[in-house]
Amino acid sequence: MPALVYLTRRFEFAAAHRIYNPAWSDEKNAELFGPCSNPMGHGHNYTLEVTIGGTPDPETGYVMDLRQLKKLVEETIIQHLDHKHLNYDVPLLHGKIPSTENLIVLIWDELQKALPGHIRLFRLRLWETNNNYFEYYGEKTD
Amino acid sequence: MPALVYLTRRFEFAAAHRIYNPAWSDEKNAELFGPCSNPMGHGHNYTLEVTIGGTPDPETGYVMDLRQLKKLVEETIIQHLDHKHLNYDVPLLHGKIPSTENLIVLIWDELQKALPGHIRLFRLRLWETNNNYFEYYGEKTD
Amino acid sequence: MPALVYLTRRFEFAAAHRIYNPAWSDEKNAELFGPCSNPMGHGHNYTLEVTIGGTPDPETGYVMDLRQLKKLVEETIIQHLDHKHLNYDVPLLHGKIPSTENLIVLIWDELQKALPGHIRLFRLRLWETNNNYFEYYGEKTD
Amino acid sequence: MPALVYLTRRFEFAAAHRIYNPAWSDEKNAELFGPCSNPMGHGHNYTLEVTIGGTPDPETGYVMDLRQLKKLVEETIIQHLDHKHLNYDVPLLHGKIPSTENLIVLIWDELQKALPGHIRLFRLRLWETNNNYFEYYGEKTD
Amino acid sequence: MPALVYLTRRFEFAAAHRIYNPAWSDEKNAELFGPCSNPMGHGHNYTLEVTIGGTPDPETGYVMDLRQLKKLVEETIIQHLDHKHLNYDVPLLHGKIPSTENLIVLIWDELQKALPGHIRLFRLRLWETNNNYFEYYGEKTD
Amino acid sequence: MPALVYLTRRFEFAAAHRIYNPAWSDEKNAELFGPCSNPMGHGHNYTLEVTIGGTPDPETGYVMDLRQLKKLVEETIIQHLDHKHLNYDVPLLHGKIPSTENLIVLIWDELQKALPGHIRLFRLRLWETNNNYFEYYGEKTD
Repeated sequence: MPALVYLTRRFEFAAAHRIYNPAWSDEKNAELFGPCSNPMGHGHNYTLEVTIGGTPDPETGYVMDLRQLKKLVEETIIQHLDHKHLNYDVPLLHGKIPSTENLIVLIWDELQKALPGHIRLFRLRLWETNNNYFEYYGEKTD
Repeated sequence: MPALVYLTRRFEFAAAHRIYNPAWSDEKNAELFGPCSNPMGHGHNYTLEVTIGGTPDPETGYVMDLRQLKKLVEETIIQHLDHKHLNYDVPLLHGKIPSTENLIVLIWDELQKALPGHIRLFRLRLWETNNNYFEYYGEKTD
Repeated sequence: MPALVYLTRRFEFAAAHRIYNPAWSDEKNAELFGPCSNPMGHGHNYTLEVTIGGTPDPETGYVMDLRQLKKLVEETIIQHLDHKHLNYDVPLLHGKIPSTENLIVLIWDELQKALPGHIRLFRLRLWETNNNYFEYYGEKTD
Repeated sequence: MPALVYLTRRFEFAAAHRIYNPAWSDEKNAELFGPCSNPMGHGHNYTLEVTIGGTPDPETGYVMDLRQLKKLVEETIIQHLDHKHLNYDVPLLHGKIPSTENLIVLIWDELQKALPGHIRLFRLRLWETNNNYFEYYGEKTD
Repeated sequence: MPALVYLTRRFEFAAAHRIYNPAWSDEKNAELFGPCSNPMGHGHNYTLEVTIGGTPDPETGYVMDLRQLKKLVEETIIQHLDHKHLNYDVPLLHGKIPSTENLIVLIWDELQKALPGHIRLFRLRLWETNNNYFEYYGEKTD
Repeated sequence: MPALVYLTRRFEFAAAHRIYNPAWSDEKNAELFGPCSNPMGHGHNYTLEVTIGGTPDPETGYVMDLRQLKKLVEETIIQHLDHKHLNYDVPLLHGKIPSTENLIVLIWDELQKALPGHIRLFRLRLWETNNNYFEYYGEKTD
């Protein structure tokens, strides 16, 4: 029986964002979100780790060619986020608070659609700073 | 259905410890634990990664405000371990060998009690050096 | 009930490899594998993370003495891969394409045989570069 | 004769910026600066390393108490940059292109004024991403 | 007077090498170089840090556009080393022992020729593993 | 003319220390040093970077064989500090406050004596935590 191996590729992008709920007053945003809600926004070097699972192809020894995975993630995700302001420049996030929680779920949905059928998207990990990161396995709660 | 997202915050603390079983002779301690049992102790820069799981709040986009999580872990855990000697200064560890295995389980139990009810403690990862780390998911064996 | 704790030790080794399928022409190898198939090979500083699970021994506080784990992995794995060319110097890989996918599965099988019976091999993580890594949990697909 | 020892403390701040010369047209900005000039800005997790030099005080063994250095840099620099948009929120940068080159020189001038007289500011290192950093030693050219 | 600022860009390349002096017997090579002289070679993920110095251009705020520096170093250096065996595939190293000391001096000479005249090459740092690196400032001894 | 190349090797050791001036009362120690003066001590994973300079030997391509440097530093320095309490277990530090400033100067003096005559000790860098490090170039002030 073939082995199930997981393969992870890391990507970086630099973006600005502002945590802001437009349904609230500026005062309530400032109170609840603190400096994360400063009007002009701030920014991060995000690191995205994309983990896929599959069985190594006997002819290549690869689950998926890393160059192919790199191209797919850069075209589907990174080009749309790098050097952008998440509140203004990213159509996918319109109407959403650009928290890293919301961002990681949207990245998952886009990658799911773009990956070849025999490749399983297993985990996303998204670092916002060196001190915090978010993970998503595609799980839903009731 | 809302997504289940995991959020991790990293913390550092500097502490001393000595691996020592008081039921044994000094010779047996030295033989079994080697330099880890040197009488005056040695120390580490520990890194603790606390991972919680939950669904993003539609009004904030957050599983839990990172500033709130930081405050809770610092008050419950870090203040009691940072710049301490684990064998002498930490009541929770009295009567326990301060191995990183024992320490991570005690941290789990304290955090479980302190976290809000709707937040699930998912994983702790505790780095002792750059070359080794311990993980605990709250699992028990029979 | 005793807690189930996971312990990870990191190892590094420097090795050369060439991704090459001898059943194919040089042209097809070059076309499919790109520079990874350059004839004389290239190399990496691999980092291997070995994760085992178990319950802390009440007398030592240890799942397994880290010095013992280090010795076992170095003798079983690292000595056979460090400063080697994976296509020529590693009997275990003969007849296999030395992709990191194939390598991680072979390391798993060797460690399984070498670890004491009460220790569970939980996960291997093998970094090929700072930007990609592979994980294996011993899973098989149908 | 007392030894001259250098002491470095690292700091992190998250900020947004846009590389933009207001004397130029938007087209020229886009052409010369590429995505760094996108109108809404992007952002980074900056890491600042402050290096001071001095002789250890015989009574404390310290060149300068790290807690005192931390407080001084946070109040003088970090609080004015963290969670800010460098083009709008930082008076010191008004009328300046917020390149990391310009930023590091301004930080130097502020720290020079704030440090105690017996402490020599030796070097600043400012990381913009994991792949680039800037250094300044207070040198001027003719 | 304008400030002199240093700017560093990091690059990675994966290569194989063998430390071997063809004027010696295989036995002497093995004795003096140990496993570094294994016949088929081994490899590393090298990290190259290129540091240049200059004054920020008042119109751009840049010492040198990072994208321009990246392109120049990739074309002059990285493309000739990445995924190569340093003993066979790199004309510049022919007749030289491919130690990291020799490699860093050759990279310096190539970059010196390729950089624009107003840019000063200040320092190269070349990591061979996570535990060792080499630096060169263009200094000669008598 | 031969090139002057600098070579750095990294080492890690785990040690405990307490910042304490025995000429002062416990109250004064607590007031000036804060938690760094807690009676039982605390600890760190120290990282030591030893940088030497020299010209590559034409026969080996090496400034100094890294294995030889590793052995020399481990025997001269690391074995005397690793898994030790710096206030009690290290004769060299007796009568000295075990600040990292004092420690780095003592390491320099020991290494100077132990290195071969044609090798120049250029720089020591000693990390106490991930957020601070100390450097010494052997400089004295008047």
